[in-house]
Amino acid sequence: MADSLYHVAGIGNAIVDVLVHADDGLLHTLGLAKGVMTLIDSGEAERIYGLLPPGVECSGGSAANTLAGVASLGARAAYVGKVKGDQLGEVFRHDIRSAGVAFDTPAAPDGPSTARCFVLVTPDAQRTMLTYLGACVELAPDDVDPAMIAASDITYLEGYLYDPPLAKQAFLKAADCAHKAGRQVALSLSDPFCVDRHRAAFLDLLADHVDILFANEAELTALYRTADVDEALRQVRGHCRIAAITRGAQGSVVVNGDTAVSVGADRVGQVVDTTGAGDLYAAGFLAGLVQGRDLAGCALLGGIAAGEVISHMGARPERPLAELARTKLGQFNSNP
Amino acid sequence: MADSLYHVAGIGNAIVDVLVHADDGLLHTLGLAKGVMTLIDSGEAERIYGLLPPGVECSGGSAANTLAGVASLGARAAYVGKVKGDQLGEVFRHDIRSAGVAFDTPAAPDGPSTARCFVLVTPDAQRTMLTYLGACVELAPDDVDPAMIAASDITYLEGYLYDPPLAKQAFLKAADCAHKAGRQVALSLSDPFCVDRHRAAFLDLLADHVDILFANEAELTALYRTADVDEALRQVRGHCRIAAITRGAQGSVVVNGDTAVSVGADRVGQVVDTTGAGDLYAAGFLAGLVQGRDLAGCALLGGIAAGEVISHMGARPERPLAELARTKLGQFNSNP
Repeated sequence: MADSLYHVAGIGNAIVDVLVHADDGLLHTLGLAKGVMTLIDSGEAERIYGLLPPGVECSGGSAANTLAGVASLGARAAYVGKVKGDQLGEVFRHDIRSAGVAFDTPAAPDGPSTARCFVLVTPDAQRTMLTYLGACVELAPDDVDPAMIAASDITYLEGYLYDPPLAKQAFLKAADCAHKAGRQVALSLSDPFCVDRHRAAFLDLLADHVDILFANEAELTALYRTADVDEALRQVRGHCRIAAITRGAQGSVVVNGDTAVSVGADRVGQVVDTTGAGDLYAAGFLAGLVQGRDLAGCALLGGIAAGEVISHMGARPERPLAELARTKLGQFNSNP
Repeated sequence: MADSLYHVAGIGNAIVDVLVHADDGLLHTLGLAKGVMTLIDSGEAERIYGLLPPGVECSGGSAANTLAGVASLGARAAYVGKVKGDQLGEVFRHDIRSAGVAFDTPAAPDGPSTARCFVLVTPDAQRTMLTYLGACVELAPDDVDPAMIAASDITYLEGYLYDPPLAKQAFLKAADCAHKAGRQVALSLSDPFCVDRHRAAFLDLLADHVDILFANEAELTALYRTADVDEALRQVRGHCRIAAITRGAQGSVVVNGDTAVSVGADRVGQVVDTTGAGDLYAAGFLAGLVQGRDLAGCALLGGIAAGEVISHMGARPERPLAELARTKLGQFNSNP
């Protein structure tokens, strides 16, 4: 995959996370099921914010987290997403650019404010999310530059993009541009409830547009409406070239035609906050692919990147992942 | 000290911190001396932000951090400070209120944006700060409600308030209201360079207005222009009722008339970020005073609060301090 401008171009909902520590009592008060992402409107966002403890703001957004990870692993990364020209929009723009990701989508001059996601982290390190999409609903096909997509080895799309209607069209335009240029398209299923909301559309996408699929077991079984992970894995084999399925503490399994590769999770110390685990797994896997690693190597790198992000609060890497990967892969190679 | 509405009312510069990990090379590039707080204007803030790595936003401000600590220790706390009615202003307001601190200062409807402080944390856990005062320059005497100050046991003022000129007048009005109501005034010297900027004014303040002084050794020796800490301690005895002087890893010394009490620092695991250490020491000390503890008990509680805040990034407590204090003081009492 030579002569590309970017190794990975990602498109997603550009979101600033508000991280708070929460206990099960607060989830109960707010009527929230643990682990789920719920969409909220601006009125609900204001009401709920008033009930939350002090927070910490940091840039998030599923695909944006992935691209920050791709760049941290030394690959060339670009991102497309919509913020407003407000303070949180400036924070988002600063953080992704300073992470080494090209980001040139113009900010919305008016309309809803930059998107926020309240991330409630419970003592068991699970995260429960409430997302106000804000300016993300303004992302439109015009924001996708066909030349940029055509010059990127892999175009990475998050399933959450199907929630704002215009963004879905931007998504389809990008997938089309990528394929016309002979490039690859990767999709993350994002969330089991997101799969429920857009299941038919996602199945169509897989049939026509997706080369590489990322999902966890809950998302994959939601897609195929089966409780049987093996059955879901059997079905997905026929629907895309590579499917990388994460299994939490059990690591991941990658299917590719008739082959399947299982890799254990990276050993980490304390798991502090699982936010971004799937996003960073995708980052490591994609960086592995563009570096020419085999599927086991890609899955291993995915596990290393995910392991770093769950060891602290927030969904973006805090340590340079390329360095971490060199150390960890070195240990792996010398201790087979 | 019965029948007060608040145990502690604090006045300070209302600031949102932008925390970034930095190495000594970045400090060198920016021409910064480690550990110092430098004031910057909006143009410099924009230029420097562009050079910083990805950050995390969380509410800060010296006195605001102290009041959040006072509330976390179970005392009744109120805060006066000026934000703008922008997104970072809303973040500041949410965080301090949800920390249990009364905060009713109206936001500035126009003018400069909410203040930001870039906090560069180096691997040695030292912090170097760049502050854009923004809306803090709009804090005015009218923002100080004499009835609220008169109804508070202790009015706590940060030395940094002497940087914006109008805020200094608000400061003096508050000190005057407090004393007319027979209440106490506490001052934190904030920073050795802040002491250099306002030395004569601070000496006048100590002579006329301050009952309780908080400083570290560098600030105290800057105030008395001596390299000899013992000499500075001798001088400060005559200038205020209580002086609580922090000594980093050596704990603190409290002087009160002819008596002096030394207390060791609280034992903590890894020191991650020393931002807020002095602010939280003041919180513990003041909460101890309003709970009727002796000076050693106040200093011990100061050390416990400071120990919590240096064990993580950010200058506000992450754990309920009242609970932590019960555990730690219990251990202390059973292991004399």
